[in-house]
Amino acid sequence: MNLEKSPLAPTQFPKMTGVDGVLLATATSGLKYKGRPDLLLVKLRPETVVAGVLTKSSAPGNPIIWCKKFLSQGAARGLIVNAGNANVFTGANGFYAVEQTAKTIAKVFKCPMEQIFVASTGVIGEKLDYHKITKCIDHMAKKLQPDGWKQAATAITTTDTFAKGSTILTKIGDSNVTITGIAKGSGMIAPDMATMLSFIFTDANISATTLQKILDRNVQSTFNSITVDSDTSTSDTVLLFATGTAKNHTVSNDRDPILKKFEKALNQVMLDLAKQVVRDGEGAQKLIRIDVIGAVSKTSARRIGLSIANSPLVKTAIAGEDANWGRVVMAVGKSGEKADRDHMSVTFGDTKIAEFGTVVESYDEAPVTKHLKGKEVCIRVDVGVGKGKATVWTCDLTHGYIEINADYRS
Amino acid sequence: MNLEKSPLAPTQFPKMTGVDGVLLATATSGLKYKGRPDLLLVKLRPETVVAGVLTKSSAPGNPIIWCKKFLSQGAARGLIVNAGNANVFTGANGFYAVEQTAKTIAKVFKCPMEQIFVASTGVIGEKLDYHKITKCIDHMAKKLQPDGWKQAATAITTTDTFAKGSTILTKIGDSNVTITGIAKGSGMIAPDMATMLSFIFTDANISATTLQKILDRNVQSTFNSITVDSDTSTSDTVLLFATGTAKNHTVSNDRDPILKKFEKALNQVMLDLAKQVVRDGEGAQKLIRIDVIGAVSKTSARRIGLSIANSPLVKTAIAGEDANWGRVVMAVGKSGEKADRDHMSVTFGDTKIAEFGTVVESYDEAPVTKHLKGKEVCIRVDVGVGKGKATVWTCDLTHGYIEINADYRS
Repeated sequence: MNLEKSPLAPTQFPKMTGVDGVLLATATSGLKYKGRPDLLLVKLRPETVVAGVLTKSSAPGNPIIWCKKFLSQGAARGLIVNAGNANVFTGANGFYAVEQTAKTIAKVFKCPMEQIFVASTGVIGEKLDYHKITKCIDHMAKKLQPDGWKQAATAITTTDTFAKGSTILTKIGDSNVTITGIAKGSGMIAPDMATMLSFIFTDANISATTLQKILDRNVQSTFNSITVDSDTSTSDTVLLFATGTAKNHTVSNDRDPILKKFEKALNQVMLDLAKQVVRDGEGAQKLIRIDVIGAVSKTSARRIGLSIANSPLVKTAIAGEDANWGRVVMAVGKSGEKADRDHMSVTFGDTKIAEFGTVVESYDEAPVTKHLKGKEVCIRVDVGVGKGKATVWTCDLTHGYIEINADYRS
Repeated sequence: MNLEKSPLAPTQFPKMTGVDGVLLATATSGLKYKGRPDLLLVKLRPETVVAGVLTKSSAPGNPIIWCKKFLSQGAARGLIVNAGNANVFTGANGFYAVEQTAKTIAKVFKCPMEQIFVASTGVIGEKLDYHKITKCIDHMAKKLQPDGWKQAATAITTTDTFAKGSTILTKIGDSNVTITGIAKGSGMIAPDMATMLSFIFTDANISATTLQKILDRNVQSTFNSITVDSDTSTSDTVLLFATGTAKNHTVSNDRDPILKKFEKALNQVMLDLAKQVVRDGEGAQKLIRIDVIGAVSKTSARRIGLSIANSPLVKTAIAGEDANWGRVVMAVGKSGEKADRDHMSVTFGDTKIAEFGTVVESYDEAPVTKHLKGKEVCIRVDVGVGKGKATVWTCDLTHGYIEINADYRS
């Protein structure tokens, strides 16, 4: 299937800053795709620490089980990612494939195999012929280089229509620090061909446990605040690697004020990558931002936001540029979260449509319709019961989604 | 928008048996639709008892608030249903409209207004001009008659493509009992035009509290086990009326063995109506039955079933006649319910595709593809952790759904 580039794609891939201690190589394994790189190998300097967040699916892929097993050790020397086969629901053979891949790389990198992290994305339930990966390792190891981020970001894609990268320069105290990441994903998940994967690298000097805490608390407002189709992947993976070559003293307390700027920058990169995934949502024609305020808590606000963002009726209304705010009310109502109908308000763009449980007196649909014709739609809902707020992002539900997922056989 | 009759529609509306003590009339109010009946009035004999199940939405419609208020009294003398305006998010005026409607009917029927039940379906957030309803009451009251079920079932429809009815003759002890019901709905909800409503009538002689208990425990396996698009309505309503003219002695214990046959028959009518709603799911081309076994409990099995049934990726795969069983595994994984990946099995039709966490040795896709070409698809999943089981029904997700909900302005 030949997919056109999403109309919501950024105009170009960003100019990425390399991260000291991170080397990249890509290859064409022939696992599924023909004539395009589908394999990414990353070499990390000794003493690199790692943090990660993995899918909560109860039927996770074998690479997830592998990463889960070794993440707590906090040490990483390498990362291998393949596109085309997710290595999910492949039984004991599938786990053996992960182990053999890690073992092969560990041998070349001269490190323990538990320091090699593995991610796979693609078809579920198909046996992974790991030889196609391992036979590429020697050659890739010879090609490792500090740049080539666009190739790296491209090699990990599946149904994505553009490569996703984000980069930022920040400081920890007086020391310059770089954060550079890539991501793939074109649905929150489309398990036969797509999954959300993101790999972020920094030269910051931070302990593994501190890195994990910072990653955990920034995932909620970024990667966990996006949705394309409500389907959670068996392979969702976010890994954050810190090589520690920046000049700052090692930070071992996640609440150390010296990290404030760094954490803000990290959140920015994570949010940028997350939003790029939504911009590449299968069939997406519009990016939808949903601000929920007045909820009993931040968590409640996020749940209400996701209830709106996951509603097929809200998403089809936006696709049809239809100012159907009643569907937003419905989605708040079905969330199961506390809301006061008689103190609720709904705003599209800059136009308040309904408040105090009914449509505003002089409501004029014209500016709302104009707003809905744009590529970016903002919906703001006050549920009238507290001070909790959250923002989530999604895309519209179009014929393109049906075409990608139903009209073509996988 | 002119909708074609669903390809999954029953060949004809059933030959309905009237219920002693129930009289029907329909009218054309002009509230929204032109030239078609959109109003149903039901008169119930004195001593009729009522039980009901209403939407759990936190932004419910005004008729829901009205019914909730008076259901516990258990007495009903009338029912009024209008199509085209849901009377949701219409503020204090909306509740006043319900009250005025009930008051007008109560005056004609010579009963307290809290014995008049009200249901509305249609657009959210539009002021309901209740005069258009009340002006029809006198005329309708003169036309009341014991039959006309098809007209009644048609008058309450919105985006439905066929009228939905179900009828059964059963016994309580030696006494003959009739159960006859109608329903509307074309999405579990499509809040601007559709909602699930069902009204069931019986002449059985049963106390109101007993009737409520029986209704409650049969809703889970019927109306609560169907989904079209995962969007819960602000107006979902199921009301069960018992006129008490059958010859059986009043039953006041819901566990009385004399009710066994009646309860089975009631479940059959409820399930029949529920499945007709799925058969009329917006854009539906295939009816999908999902059997989940091996869960820790019945509740857990139902949740897993609904997770599969609500997955856009599963539904689009079925629409595309694609044997994409990996998406079923994904949907089990995302349900949050206990499942053992290594003891899970997936069967489509009569073909076991995967077991023990991987695809079966000699898997042949041909019979699965053949099964998927039919109008009715069966998916069976064993999650391998217990003895809980449940069945849910849904339909596929097609271009038709997008057309109905996005391509046309409401």
